[in-house]
Amino acid sequence: MSAGHEEDLVHLSTTSRVEAFSDGVMAIAITLLVLDLKLPNADVGDGSLLDALLVRWPTYAAYLAAFLTIGIIWLNHHTLIAKIARFDARLHWLNLVLLLGVATLPFPTSLVAEYVGKGGANASVAAATYGLCATLMALPWSFMWRHLRDHPELLEPGYDATYASAEMRRGGIGVPIYVAATIVSLIQPLLALGLYAAIAALYAVTSQGALAPRPGSDPSGTADGGRR
Amino acid sequence: MSAGHEEDLVHLSTTSRVEAFSDGVMAIAITLLVLDLKLPNADVGDGSLLDALLVRWPTYAAYLAAFLTIGIIWLNHHTLIAKIARFDARLHWLNLVLLLGVATLPFPTSLVAEYVGKGGANASVAAATYGLCATLMALPWSFMWRHLRDHPELLEPGYDATYASAEMRRGGIGVPIYVAATIVSLIQPLLALGLYAAIAALYAVTSQGALAPRPGSDPSGTADGGRR
Amino acid sequence: MSAGHEEDLVHLSTTSRVEAFSDGVMAIAITLLVLDLKLPNADVGDGSLLDALLVRWPTYAAYLAAFLTIGIIWLNHHTLIAKIARFDARLHWLNLVLLLGVATLPFPTSLVAEYVGKGGANASVAAATYGLCATLMALPWSFMWRHLRDHPELLEPGYDATYASAEMRRGGIGVPIYVAATIVSLIQPLLALGLYAAIAALYAVTSQGALAPRPGSDPSGTADGGRR
Amino acid sequence: MSAGHEEDLVHLSTTSRVEAFSDGVMAIAITLLVLDLKLPNADVGDGSLLDALLVRWPTYAAYLAAFLTIGIIWLNHHTLIAKIARFDARLHWLNLVLLLGVATLPFPTSLVAEYVGKGGANASVAAATYGLCATLMALPWSFMWRHLRDHPELLEPGYDATYASAEMRRGGIGVPIYVAATIVSLIQPLLALGLYAAIAALYAVTSQGALAPRPGSDPSGTADGGRR
Repeated sequence: MSAGHEEDLVHLSTTSRVEAFSDGVMAIAITLLVLDLKLPNADVGDGSLLDALLVRWPTYAAYLAAFLTIGIIWLNHHTLIAKIARFDARLHWLNLVLLLGVATLPFPTSLVAEYVGKGGANASVAAATYGLCATLMALPWSFMWRHLRDHPELLEPGYDATYASAEMRRGGIGVPIYVAATIVSLIQPLLALGLYAAIAALYAVTSQGALAPRPGSDPSGTADGGRR
Repeated sequence: MSAGHEEDLVHLSTTSRVEAFSDGVMAIAITLLVLDLKLPNADVGDGSLLDALLVRWPTYAAYLAAFLTIGIIWLNHHTLIAKIARFDARLHWLNLVLLLGVATLPFPTSLVAEYVGKGGANASVAAATYGLCATLMALPWSFMWRHLRDHPELLEPGYDATYASAEMRRGGIGVPIYVAATIVSLIQPLLALGLYAAIAALYAVTSQGALAPRPGSDPSGTADGGRR
Repeated sequence: MSAGHEEDLVHLSTTSRVEAFSDGVMAIAITLLVLDLKLPNADVGDGSLLDALLVRWPTYAAYLAAFLTIGIIWLNHHTLIAKIARFDARLHWLNLVLLLGVATLPFPTSLVAEYVGKGGANASVAAATYGLCATLMALPWSFMWRHLRDHPELLEPGYDATYASAEMRRGGIGVPIYVAATIVSLIQPLLALGLYAAIAALYAVTSQGALAPRPGSDPSGTADGGRR
Repeated sequence: MSAGHEEDLVHLSTTSRVEAFSDGVMAIAITLLVLDLKLPNADVGDGSLLDALLVRWPTYAAYLAAFLTIGIIWLNHHTLIAKIARFDARLHWLNLVLLLGVATLPFPTSLVAEYVGKGGANASVAAATYGLCATLMALPWSFMWRHLRDHPELLEPGYDATYASAEMRRGGIGVPIYVAATIVSLIQPLLALGLYAAIAALYAVTSQGALAPRPGSDPSGTADGGRR
């Protein structure tokens, strides 16, 4: 078999396949969110569609927050996987926990859309459910980095235990922030909705750092900067 | 590790992965459209299924228009990404905005399917909602090309700032057209539905140009013409 | 940049990307079918779940037929794309028509599930709708092969206009068969349901041929037989 | 065409494409499960959202069990495919049966969620339906390995008929276990729910073995251990 043939028939590396499955789950979860926008016919009847749409503004706010959150998680996940050379069983499990959080997010998002605008105890419960799910999504990151710190042989060349330690600390910030927002949500559900959006935006800024060139890479950055 | 092994275990480039996630979102959005075709049992009862199907013709028109629109966006997106060597944070964000538009499209499509046939103010609101979402999908293209014009190092070899400038102008046409169609939809919703389909068809013709060989490529075109 | 680096950062060929998008649409369409199995709570109430499940047997038959149909289309599509070296605009459009048929199939499947068991005119309409959609899925194959016959430079090495001609004839058989089954469905909807399953099974056997070694390939078949 | 060009335009091997389609189906099935968590508005009304959520605990248990089950099947599928060099028609069909089981799982999961908490005959029927679907998912594994034992030329280098025999026996354990759990479910549906979760957990432990280095591989394990 010639070299040309070989190149014709490549296998993807294990991390590419984990990413393919994860990308699939995240792409579906982010796209399923639209189903909650659906307007029940009974809510319009012979009345004004415009009024029926406008009164549902918390639904759109929740949709945007959840879309942004999953979008950023995808971006960060993408950056994480680019630094991992291979997955062992523990990384697979932690990744499944992360995907559980992402795949479940449309559920609390629909609760927030439905109940936060109505106020009262139900608004608090809805906002807190979103917070618990977001916490579940924030948890695996630092556990993954701790495992990578202890097993730096799983990392791509150019990354080591020191790098993993730093990422473990950075990834650990999300959990207390989301726990705090969840507690706030019990008292001020609308404020918590704003907090969730703010955290997503904060992660967005942080992820820009994550997209920076790897340590010690070619300073010109053209080949490696946005390498994966 | 031998060269043969290396070829066995490839990583995808960053743009391939962005495309994989984008393809996922677009494939799901285009397939979720079918859920709106679903016929409520109550609409048939003991009556004629054929009548119940035929009276819903605006649903099928909206389905076809939305399917065609997402199909063409996929084609153009595919062509765009083939010209980008790597994604920086700004391109990632603009791509997420584009995906937000695509993922949201099933919602105004279902509004159009439900209300445009009924006429009145609700028909106008439904058609205008579709127009706003289509405008959101049209917006990121020229911003992406402007960013690529200012950072031609992000482009694949063979493309430069001049090329990006031309694409920026071409990509910018969509926004005023969709804004105009949205305004028309407020007065003549059914006409606007036709306009949306016409714009999709127009893009389809334009995208044929986009599928043409890259500038300065091998004139035989066999290797590079439909390169990606 | 070393050769090792190059191998690390591959781009997928254009046909791989078309297949990725097509695979996405087909994977989603085949998985969305399950939503029609959902049992309305009202249909059970305080009664027997077993009875409520058993009375819905046409739903399961329709589910299996549609799952099998999309599964086989995926298999044949996969085999088709392996023989195409690159996609031009016309192939892209024909592929979109095929995907339109696949993505739409869950709709007539749910009509069949709901109405074929009830008999009468509605059963005929439901079964005929399925037939029309299946015809739409059968149409693009021979058009694709005709285009490949006229542009053999789009084919992978080892395939030529003669091969494309033969495939065009083979691919063209599906259309009259599905048209005939659609006509039968107007008179005998339950029989047509059996016919649709039989056609799928027939394609299954035919696709085994399609999975055979390419003409003129290594007779040992180990490298090329199931090459893609 | 230079070697650099070749590497730019790779085709995926046939097994990568089977995995891409399978990953798509599994990613969608695992993500569609969330739709069952959706809380009907009527169940809350003016009452307590918290109460309405808590009373639905079997829904969450079923969601977690099904998510875990599909997650583990993905992991095992991934490990299986890494050992297969190419797919023939029989492997394609067995894989489709497996995907049929996975894609159908959200249906019995929703039955379990709805009826197991209510007790009585309906609880038994719901739990047994889940068991039947899980049995369908367990069936293809040993058939696949038997076929690979008889056709070891389909295996990747490093695996042989002896290895396939051992895997066939290991893969065959699932079927009697799920059949037994299905029988238990007729008498003790809640206990069966626990059994299904236990089987998933058992597979999880077993799959760790499946992730171990291939027989006769480089003892350092760094290159091949989690190879794919």
